[in-house]
Amino acid sequence: MDSRTIGVLGGGQLGRMLVEAAHRLNIRVAILDTETAPAKQINQIANSSHVTGSFAKSADVRQLASKADILTYEIEHVDTKVLEELEAESPFVADSQSWHRIQPSWQTVRTIQDKYAQKQHLAKHGIPTADSKGVGTSSPQGLKEIALELGGLPIMLKARTQAYDGRGNYPIMKVEDIEPALKSLSDRPLYAERWAPFKKELAVMVVKTAQEASGDQYEQSTLAFPVTETVHEDSICKLTYTPPREVPSKVQRQAQDLARKAVSTFQGTGVFGVELFLLEDDTLLINEIAPRPHNSGHYTIEACHMSQYEAHLRAISPDLSSTITPGSTDLAVNAAVMLNILGGPQPDSHLLVARSALKIPGAKVHLYGKGDGRPGRKMGHITIVGKSMSEIEQKIHPLIILVDSIRAHKDSAKNSNEDISATATELLKRNPIPPAKPLLAVVMGSDTDLATLRPGLELLDKMPIPYLVTITSAHRTPQHMLNFGKAAASRGFKAIVAAAGGAAHLPGMMASETTVPVVGCPVKASSMDGLDSLFAIVQMPRGIPVATVGIANSTNAILLAARIIGTSEPAVQEWLSAHLQQMDDENMAKAARLEGEGWRDYKKLDQAMPLSFK
Amino acid sequence: MDSRTIGVLGGGQLGRMLVEAAHRLNIRVAILDTETAPAKQINQIANSSHVTGSFAKSADVRQLASKADILTYEIEHVDTKVLEELEAESPFVADSQSWHRIQPSWQTVRTIQDKYAQKQHLAKHGIPTADSKGVGTSSPQGLKEIALELGGLPIMLKARTQAYDGRGNYPIMKVEDIEPALKSLSDRPLYAERWAPFKKELAVMVVKTAQEASGDQYEQSTLAFPVTETVHEDSICKLTYTPPREVPSKVQRQAQDLARKAVSTFQGTGVFGVELFLLEDDTLLINEIAPRPHNSGHYTIEACHMSQYEAHLRAISPDLSSTITPGSTDLAVNAAVMLNILGGPQPDSHLLVARSALKIPGAKVHLYGKGDGRPGRKMGHITIVGKSMSEIEQKIHPLIILVDSIRAHKDSAKNSNEDISATATELLKRNPIPPAKPLLAVVMGSDTDLATLRPGLELLDKMPIPYLVTITSAHRTPQHMLNFGKAAASRGFKAIVAAAGGAAHLPGMMASETTVPVVGCPVKASSMDGLDSLFAIVQMPRGIPVATVGIANSTNAILLAARIIGTSEPAVQEWLSAHLQQMDDENMAKAARLEGEGWRDYKKLDQAMPLSFK
Repeated sequence: MDSRTIGVLGGGQLGRMLVEAAHRLNIRVAILDTETAPAKQINQIANSSHVTGSFAKSADVRQLASKADILTYEIEHVDTKVLEELEAESPFVADSQSWHRIQPSWQTVRTIQDKYAQKQHLAKHGIPTADSKGVGTSSPQGLKEIALELGGLPIMLKARTQAYDGRGNYPIMKVEDIEPALKSLSDRPLYAERWAPFKKELAVMVVKTAQEASGDQYEQSTLAFPVTETVHEDSICKLTYTPPREVPSKVQRQAQDLARKAVSTFQGTGVFGVELFLLEDDTLLINEIAPRPHNSGHYTIEACHMSQYEAHLRAISPDLSSTITPGSTDLAVNAAVMLNILGGPQPDSHLLVARSALKIPGAKVHLYGKGDGRPGRKMGHITIVGKSMSEIEQKIHPLIILVDSIRAHKDSAKNSNEDISATATELLKRNPIPPAKPLLAVVMGSDTDLATLRPGLELLDKMPIPYLVTITSAHRTPQHMLNFGKAAASRGFKAIVAAAGGAAHLPGMMASETTVPVVGCPVKASSMDGLDSLFAIVQMPRGIPVATVGIANSTNAILLAARIIGTSEPAVQEWLSAHLQQMDDENMAKAARLEGEGWRDYKKLDQAMPLSFK
Repeated sequence: MDSRTIGVLGGGQLGRMLVEAAHRLNIRVAILDTETAPAKQINQIANSSHVTGSFAKSADVRQLASKADILTYEIEHVDTKVLEELEAESPFVADSQSWHRIQPSWQTVRTIQDKYAQKQHLAKHGIPTADSKGVGTSSPQGLKEIALELGGLPIMLKARTQAYDGRGNYPIMKVEDIEPALKSLSDRPLYAERWAPFKKELAVMVVKTAQEASGDQYEQSTLAFPVTETVHEDSICKLTYTPPREVPSKVQRQAQDLARKAVSTFQGTGVFGVELFLLEDDTLLINEIAPRPHNSGHYTIEACHMSQYEAHLRAISPDLSSTITPGSTDLAVNAAVMLNILGGPQPDSHLLVARSALKIPGAKVHLYGKGDGRPGRKMGHITIVGKSMSEIEQKIHPLIILVDSIRAHKDSAKNSNEDISATATELLKRNPIPPAKPLLAVVMGSDTDLATLRPGLELLDKMPIPYLVTITSAHRTPQHMLNFGKAAASRGFKAIVAAAGGAAHLPGMMASETTVPVVGCPVKASSMDGLDSLFAIVQMPRGIPVATVGIANSTNAILLAARIIGTSEPAVQEWLSAHLQQMDDENMAKAARLEGEGWRDYKKLDQAMPLSFK
């Protein structure tokens, strides 16, 4: 598709997934890494262009540059000095006027390599990050003073360079931690960071398609992938949840916006992985940025219209960067969870996870071709996509337990895979798969309404719909009712059935607090034969609709909710079709019986007959 | 993941996609084909095991067998004699007791290679296929007699062997066609087939996991992928639509069942592509079967939990076949369309389609690495997945037009890519992108109800919901109304708003014929202030619910329908959230104004004020 060769510094799993995307577009990718690097294993067509060597050695980088039209990275710990020289020697792609052949720019990588320089760069551009100070001293007293300037302990002491997967970070919680922290990181330049008391870590992959962009052009020059929630363990990414759990969509949009603004301040094109902290008050800080595809963006392969890998290849190519259009970074599914597979005590312990995943419909297995596993080494990952986070959380649960069991055994080679499996079985017994989250809430103002709801609930029990039945009263527990309504959409309810009698405020009040459709079931109260309830429920003011059914007709309330849920759940719609057919059949049978037996002798069958017209 | 090497006879695009799936599972795949075959280009890790040669040459097959633990195919035109010998020499995978190393069996391939033998095999097992007769004669009179035995002309004259992509088929419509047909296919063994007047061609990919299975075990030994509709042009697959358009789900289940039964009659494991004819009366015939992944199953890569390629690799591996569990062949999305990219007049004409596809969010491009294109050669394909077939049909429309334009120019190398683009522009003008299919139907019994519906419709116009407004009357056009209801679900409506006054039967009658939620809007008729309409709509018998709103409150009817649609359309739910907030803000502003101006001077703002409470 593009006749140019893209040279990639580094050929680990990120490079491998770049190659995978490149093959589908017939883009030639040459790799600089060891002979059997994961990215080379799946790339024979560029054999004559691969380089055996290291992305940190200038001669090797030069050799790759001689074979490639465009240079890029799958890791930022590269030799930027040789890149600077190469840029000076011949900055642009051969048959392009002004497209830089090093993408993103070596300057971007150099800034990002030094995490303190990165922080200063962001601060200079008005991007919120945790306050930080360079640490020029190796004396505890000096660091103590810096801590005071940052608002006091706790602080994070961090290595400025060569830090990844949490290596090079030392949390200083109390004065006694200062000395060991300085000792532990004594071999490199350091900086100190104000403690960020985050409640969640988020990440946003951003694709930048314009080589240079001033701050206010970030909307033209960048597109953001969906926000993902990252869960770390031992300072390594363990899980990502997309969309993030319990993060309001407004905050998600802010995170995307912030990430795009931050990325637009760097030179060159490509995909950037932006890690953020979400603080208790829902404000956001940028933690750090990677100038390349990122572990937290693996989920995009299955979940988005375009993967981060394809996005990177296209963004750095002069003829393809303009083909990236708004919408291409959107989710193609409702939700996705990614689980990293790390090595365990045995060379094949990680395959326990992969094998288990194969049996779970929807779990996509990615192994990186790294051969024997080592404790903590990234060997592969699993992505599960689905209709709802709840559905995915059920599927991934046993895999997380396996990963936890491998971790529990990873430190001794004496531990066998059988030990791991035994631990997993034990853990699963204590933490069973969570139940499906209800799609339907049935609420009533008082337990006396239960009698009216019972026929509907009995029918509901036969449907493939997980549900919740509870009490909340518009008058006795008004605040609880409002809260219930406010949270209904984010809890995943697709319909609410509310029963009430008399003044019957519950359905309408519930409907005022949510966009989830509310079905109102009028209960016959002590007077007026239920007419009071009916009018109170159906005659809502313009703007707030309640789907009202007949007086005391809970069967129809439940069936209506099922029809609503059936618009997006095929299994429910099929159940309803069969139910309609069954009613038809039953009525035809009654007609036949009446014609046969005659009206004098015709007897109504007993009440146990299900689902018929009354 | 599996330490064995799988040897594949053939390394075209199907082999390439097998390799792609194998890499993710770290399964080693060795390819027998030419040096630069598509499957080899992406597979360096098995370099020492690949064989340069032909799957039709016994020595080459033997060489591959010496390097592989398991043998399989990506094409059925292989040398089965050498496979029979290899089977006799050593039938089983080395460290497995009884797992055949040739999967599926060479016998299966031999039967399938001879299309007449295949037909006889299916007929013997009671699988419905078009009646057929062997043609032992080369005399027109002899063939005429055979035609009579098959019920008369038209018939299809078909080559028994070496027939694919429609090559080797000759339709005999009238007596005069007999001689040229015999002449055209004179070089190979023939058979004649009764004409199958199909309305659609369908395909079902089936994965068989047990080596042998008697007919009644087909449920244990096989899983079916979703049914796909195939559209052929020049006897080559052009498009697949999954699920098939306008095929009842009952018929789809029958097709899956039939395909599974057919596949279970063959020996060995793996994926089989089953092509079917859907006749006018909705009965099904099997057309033919391929013992391998199939063009009509490309869509499974993006659309299903497990692709046909991964399924094939796992099904033929003794340790992995049992990991294939029910559900794994299901759709992970609602719909998918696959479009083949064929070569055109210029070596890069096919890239016109690929480049256009890049700009369409959700269009996944697969190029096969075949270098220069030749007219009609399969160079790649595009898959688009989405929430609805309607959404996908809009996206794929311009790409189909480009494919048509390439085809129109393919026969002369004088035609340039500019000619193709010009034709595409012209065609697109004449056949513009189809409008989005409506998600909401608003129906009324009579045009007099329009006045009541107008406020709701004006609000609807501001929502991101494609809709249809029409008239259908329960009493004046009862059959039309029932038909409308019956078709509502398959037309993709997610809600129906029905307005009616007086006896007001329309909403309830509509609800009797569909599982789509019906919102009833009572219209004030000439008497009783609309109470008659309200009761007629809300007091439905048990079993058939109507979501009733207040009398003449069309605003709430539309908002309720929007809430229903919003349960599966995030954009609609977001619109509704903003609308709720807007109403809140407006009311608070009124409160502030009333407090400020005082009740004596307070003036209601003009009626143009939108969306407020009345």
